[in-house]
Amino acid sequence: MILMNAKPLIEKRREFLKEKTNALVHTLGRAPALAVILVGSNPASQIYVSNKSKAAESVGFTSETFQFEESTPPQKVYELVQQLNEDPAIDGILIQRPLPNSFSNQEVMFWVLPEKDVDCLHPENIGLLTSGLPRFNPCTPAGVLLLLDFYQLTVDGKIACVIGRSNIVGKPLASMLLARNASVIQIHRGTKNPSALCKQADFIFAAAGSKKLVQSDWVKPGAVIVDIGIHREENGKLCGDVDFESTSPIASAMTPVPGGVGPMTIQVLLENTYQAAINQGS
Amino acid sequence: MILMNAKPLIEKRREFLKEKTNALVHTLGRAPALAVILVGSNPASQIYVSNKSKAAESVGFTSETFQFEESTPPQKVYELVQQLNEDPAIDGILIQRPLPNSFSNQEVMFWVLPEKDVDCLHPENIGLLTSGLPRFNPCTPAGVLLLLDFYQLTVDGKIACVIGRSNIVGKPLASMLLARNASVIQIHRGTKNPSALCKQADFIFAAAGSKKLVQSDWVKPGAVIVDIGIHREENGKLCGDVDFESTSPIASAMTPVPGGVGPMTIQVLLENTYQAAINQGS
Repeated sequence: MILMNAKPLIEKRREFLKEKTNALVHTLGRAPALAVILVGSNPASQIYVSNKSKAAESVGFTSETFQFEESTPPQKVYELVQQLNEDPAIDGILIQRPLPNSFSNQEVMFWVLPEKDVDCLHPENIGLLTSGLPRFNPCTPAGVLLLLDFYQLTVDGKIACVIGRSNIVGKPLASMLLARNASVIQIHRGTKNPSALCKQADFIFAAAGSKKLVQSDWVKPGAVIVDIGIHREENGKLCGDVDFESTSPIASAMTPVPGGVGPMTIQVLLENTYQAAINQGS
Repeated sequence: MILMNAKPLIEKRREFLKEKTNALVHTLGRAPALAVILVGSNPASQIYVSNKSKAAESVGFTSETFQFEESTPPQKVYELVQQLNEDPAIDGILIQRPLPNSFSNQEVMFWVLPEKDVDCLHPENIGLLTSGLPRFNPCTPAGVLLLLDFYQLTVDGKIACVIGRSNIVGKPLASMLLARNASVIQIHRGTKNPSALCKQADFIFAAAGSKKLVQSDWVKPGAVIVDIGIHREENGKLCGDVDFESTSPIASAMTPVPGGVGPMTIQVLLENTYQAAINQGS
């Protein structure tokens, strides 16, 4: 079984991005700039935001984090986003989710200018992706595909089962797999007998947000398993949406949790921000 | 077997739309207005465009068709679209496809203002649909779902197989079925052994653009079949993507071709235009 560790790929791509950034700084006269907005004090979000800015700085970007208290009126955050949208020295803007309940997702998705929406959440960017003409690639699904490419696993002509239908992972991933000529089976909590559908798949993408949902009876021998979930077990260890212990003897390749899909998400965010800087500079 | 004829549904909805339009004319001071743009002289497009304006007028809309020669520079058509976008007396704008090769689809999809894009082709509208927050519903997929509703066939919890992955039908239909809690298997010309995947489905949606592709060995006994294709046979008769003769004895319900999905597409176009007029008036 091939363990699809992100580390060698991240090292390679981050080094390459660092070099490209160095060159870009010369032509652009400044480094690519990422603005990250955090509202409230969700501990996981604080870690994510901190990891994102550290990664941005590690490749030579400038990164600024704007923190707001949980009780901040949405209008105030909106005004900052408008300023950042208009600021030619800012290339990418990321609003960390989840937001407090006082924010309307339906409104917030329109806030960041599509050209600076490096998280690929603006409806226009989702529509471009769905239409096969992506401006940016959504971070987690694109990270998954980079990982498959690195390990030379191709979905073309294969059956892919996507477990989950979130706007951030399940839906765009299914769309990107379809664009790569996979036949896609998309299942979710409303699916009766999900294991029977999943067991037909050559590739399994688990993004259900449900701890160890995928057991050995869901997996066809030789299948490739990509685990997009992350949970903490009672003993404190991290695990995914897939039961690694029972499925890894059957799979031909599998991502570890942690160290698989997670780091890829940040890598794509950086590459999108670099692309935004190129686009803005041209 | 239930034959899912569109006629009774169309009659009912068109009558209802006529009454609502009548009322809207009083509050708005004018009828909902649809502008249709046709470039070139594709005979099928000419018939479609003529049917759309006739249908619009039959419910009390005003409808204007703008015809351009095949050789018209895209810029000229673009300028008309900009005028119509700015005209407060126009609610919906439709650019008939296919366009001549001199037009870039990637550019044209942005031309019509999202608020007037009653054909639901602007990336922003596709993204809103994908995100589960549709502004308009894409005409053919939404027409398919209206037909299922009328015949009280519900996809919730069922397996739906979508054959085809076009931007106009296959992709948005899969997205709408997922939103209705179906498990979706999406297959296409790159799928190996498509009949085995299709045969698991409780609902089959054939939008492959391939004459009589779906034969009896693709169909699970009791399945519901929706045929979204239209082709002309050598004997001059119309047929769909599904072989009616061999599959109808197995299916529990099936759309006829013609008289099934086709008329529904125009009905949704009218309802979108009405909605656009309401939105613009408010």
